[in-house]
Amino acid sequence: MAETKVVDADTIFKELRTHSISEFFRKNSQMLGYSGKVRSLTTAVHEYVSNSLDACEEAGILPDIAVEIKQLSEFKYSVQVSDNGPGIPQNILGRVLATVLSGTKFHRYVQQRGQQGIGGSGCTLFSQITTGKAIHIKSGTGRSAYECDLTIDIKSNRPLITNMRGMDNSFRGVTIYGEFGDVKYENSEHGIYEYLRRTALSNPHASIKLADPEGKEYNFVRSVLEMPKKPKVTKPHPLGIGTNDLLEFAHHSESKKISMFLMETFSRLSQGKVDELKGMMPGFDFDKEPRQLTWDESEKLVNAFKQIKWLAPDLDSLSTIGEEQIKATIKNILNPQFMSVVERRPKVFRGGIPFVVEAGIAYGGNAGKGVGEGGSKGVLIRFANKVPLLFDGSICAVTTAVASIDWKRYGIKEFENEPISVLVNVSSVYVPYSGVGKQAISQEPEVVDEIKLAVQDCARGLQRYMSGERNRNIQASKYQTVMRYVNQLSINLSEITGKQQKSIETELRSLIDRRYKKLLEAESAANAAEEEAEAAVDSADDARSEPGEGEAGPEDE
Amino acid sequence: MAETKVVDADTIFKELRTHSISEFFRKNSQMLGYSGKVRSLTTAVHEYVSNSLDACEEAGILPDIAVEIKQLSEFKYSVQVSDNGPGIPQNILGRVLATVLSGTKFHRYVQQRGQQGIGGSGCTLFSQITTGKAIHIKSGTGRSAYECDLTIDIKSNRPLITNMRGMDNSFRGVTIYGEFGDVKYENSEHGIYEYLRRTALSNPHASIKLADPEGKEYNFVRSVLEMPKKPKVTKPHPLGIGTNDLLEFAHHSESKKISMFLMETFSRLSQGKVDELKGMMPGFDFDKEPRQLTWDESEKLVNAFKQIKWLAPDLDSLSTIGEEQIKATIKNILNPQFMSVVERRPKVFRGGIPFVVEAGIAYGGNAGKGVGEGGSKGVLIRFANKVPLLFDGSICAVTTAVASIDWKRYGIKEFENEPISVLVNVSSVYVPYSGVGKQAISQEPEVVDEIKLAVQDCARGLQRYMSGERNRNIQASKYQTVMRYVNQLSINLSEITGKQQKSIETELRSLIDRRYKKLLEAESAANAAEEEAEAAVDSADDARSEPGEGEAGPEDE
Repeated sequence: MAETKVVDADTIFKELRTHSISEFFRKNSQMLGYSGKVRSLTTAVHEYVSNSLDACEEAGILPDIAVEIKQLSEFKYSVQVSDNGPGIPQNILGRVLATVLSGTKFHRYVQQRGQQGIGGSGCTLFSQITTGKAIHIKSGTGRSAYECDLTIDIKSNRPLITNMRGMDNSFRGVTIYGEFGDVKYENSEHGIYEYLRRTALSNPHASIKLADPEGKEYNFVRSVLEMPKKPKVTKPHPLGIGTNDLLEFAHHSESKKISMFLMETFSRLSQGKVDELKGMMPGFDFDKEPRQLTWDESEKLVNAFKQIKWLAPDLDSLSTIGEEQIKATIKNILNPQFMSVVERRPKVFRGGIPFVVEAGIAYGGNAGKGVGEGGSKGVLIRFANKVPLLFDGSICAVTTAVASIDWKRYGIKEFENEPISVLVNVSSVYVPYSGVGKQAISQEPEVVDEIKLAVQDCARGLQRYMSGERNRNIQASKYQTVMRYVNQLSINLSEITGKQQKSIETELRSLIDRRYKKLLEAESAANAAEEEAEAAVDSADDARSEPGEGEAGPEDE
Repeated sequence: MAETKVVDADTIFKELRTHSISEFFRKNSQMLGYSGKVRSLTTAVHEYVSNSLDACEEAGILPDIAVEIKQLSEFKYSVQVSDNGPGIPQNILGRVLATVLSGTKFHRYVQQRGQQGIGGSGCTLFSQITTGKAIHIKSGTGRSAYECDLTIDIKSNRPLITNMRGMDNSFRGVTIYGEFGDVKYENSEHGIYEYLRRTALSNPHASIKLADPEGKEYNFVRSVLEMPKKPKVTKPHPLGIGTNDLLEFAHHSESKKISMFLMETFSRLSQGKVDELKGMMPGFDFDKEPRQLTWDESEKLVNAFKQIKWLAPDLDSLSTIGEEQIKATIKNILNPQFMSVVERRPKVFRGGIPFVVEAGIAYGGNAGKGVGEGGSKGVLIRFANKVPLLFDGSICAVTTAVASIDWKRYGIKEFENEPISVLVNVSSVYVPYSGVGKQAISQEPEVVDEIKLAVQDCARGLQRYMSGERNRNIQASKYQTVMRYVNQLSINLSEITGKQQKSIETELRSLIDRRYKKLLEAESAANAAEEEAEAAVDSADDARSEPGEGEAGPEDE
């Protein structure tokens, strides 16, 4: 038996301490994306650029963003990100950039790149623990401008603002400067250049400049002059809500009656729907105070929600890249032989959280990633809310979905060994990220399925292209074979018939040409018919399962 | 240009809110491991069982753990975990199980399964948001016993304890009961049975029982009656420390002088080493108060640390499964044709955080995972601090290390298609998990390298076995071929020589048998010599790079 002396519980637990969330992430900065020298630097740029894009979008300003990276010593770099956005009001600065979980907007139902209230403060924390330096910020809102230094008091998770001074009030936007240690600039697929290139791809309304540590400048030019559709703040849909969510809403409601509370809190929940609920739940007191709602009552309501036909979730909360934009950028960057892009109609996951998937496939040209001598391998370009995801691909829903496709059906022998790029963007008010660092989308079944359908939509076009390509190759080679004998045949026919050899040859050639042309026409007509038939099937599918503006019932779950 | 009306910063930021860490994880429970129905249920069991094993280990009690799962409705289950541990003192209960980040021990330098102060409270949170139910706990410390219900006030991240009442003081240990929704029991490689089987494998001193939802009982019997070596609480090593860490320690020190502070705070930092530092850093004031230490001074100290020869980190803080234990359990569970196990000597990562890797390879028998008709595929069994890691394998350092091995060199054509199991356990005071859910080890280069070396150590034995197996197969088939002709040959020789056929045949057979035996002996002698030579190379390697009890210089970084 154990010889060790038995220690009692008081001794064991006497060393327990309470730590602030800042302290936790100080010890576990890898969970915020600060793991590996290259990734850490990319993460810092990603946080600042996402904040700039979000702020400009909310303010309705076409973003001009400039990123400047300088090397200070072997593994120490400075990052400066400037934008022309709305600025940060002085009174909330500390919460936005120097208090973990404080500048949070995730209680709002609106699509944004950043929502957690962790990213910006995470940068401040990482700078602080790797270089001991404060972040320097300049901000101008149009009415006033200031600059100052910023750190976090880690033990208390509170901001420390120093050297605050006013600036010329003509300064607009935010310029943020930080120094980071244990990082490295690298021009790789995980580096800043690639991150910004992909950001430009998904945000064609933004102008993005990069000055790299060697002083080289890159300019991702704005390709559209229109702001993307601004996602609206909406109310949650009854189908997207769990028992606990409903309870939380109810307990913080100021409504006098549950019936009022329901109509005020949820979208699509009209007086008519309340009456329907009342009919379904005899004895349930819709006049009681929402604060008195119990778990069991909340559960009953949620179950009743699931039996009602609802109008689909309000989709104005979603903002996509857009089919035309994706086409333009794919053409611009990959210049492929073949390209197919779809924007699916919005769907819901977990019952009622709306999301929408866009996908594109590019084949040939600069698609795929060159390897070795003329070889190429398939590449996956992942976005969530238009933000490029460069890391943790192997646990991402996008990867799972694309890997589950039987590519042979679409004329792709091995995805790994073809010049193919697949682009996927998932947009939602709430993207279910797998980790705090937001680099992968977790495996929600509805999301995985929808990504797969989107990519398959594109792949059907690819399949036609590939088989057409193959047919054309076969026809062309038959044509050439036949043509090779035309001259000899015309000589022989001339000898037999006494006709002039040249005219026989000309006639033969034009006969064969006509035949070949007809063959090609017949083939393309067959393709068109096939396409129409498929489109009909698709729209039938959609009509069955799609929560458009029509009724959305429990089958959408 | 944009037609959208420009919105100013005050409007944009007026909706900012501060959220508690509980609120954050309520919205993002997938980050704690609660994603997917099967995984969520396994996560809850994992948290409770880890807590029980930790508590028993600290108390010096051989653990008896009983897990009981019951199905309440389609996706609702109850989990009850009972142990015979030291109990939880009533006054800290709320912090341990109902305040996220409060029951934290990560400021201590000692190896434990749980340290974050998130796991237990995460279960309470998950139960609460999926069923609205409180966790019920019974605890007896030997001096007093109580039972009560427990929830978290999510908005404030504070515990709510209700129905507190005393129990018979003879009750010992902890019995915790929770109900969880949106979960599912499944007997798969990600399920609870597999989790507990692997836990038993790495904790042979524990007795673990499982009663599954169908009422079936499984008993993982304790196979050793000794407690594992108890990991000691140690001081951090100077090489494991960054500028910011040193500064944090200094600013919270009550020492009067930096010299005293250094000796009190760090292991291996003697008066002699302080004198050495003084010699290296003329002008540096070792008599000033630690609270006055600046970032620059701290950086100078850290750089000086790196130029000094230190005794290696104290390794008493590490607790392994043990080579003999691993062998016994592999034999017990996989009954392989071949098995090789190594426990490497401890190493350090990030300069001074000690860790140790154990690895085992099993081939044949029940190793690998059966697929299809008699097929098999390679299996990776990962542990961190003896806790099985069942999820997120694709981003784990163990997977990366094993995938980077050229298995053909070791006689394995395709790892994916052989009856092979590789077991790896990484033990450390600080395991660098990639996420809050602690299911994968992040890609620290030193850790990846060391895992690879450990598995290669085992694989060398495998290679000998495989090539021996191959040779034996070749020899055996030659032997059989020769034997096939012995009878005919003896008849012919008998005709030629006039000798009796039977006696000729007997002589021939014994001649061939002697030859074949010699061949086998020569081969095994050659193998033994090879082994000795390799062992000599290994120990030379180790002497060069290993931080044993000898000097450890900057080359360990």
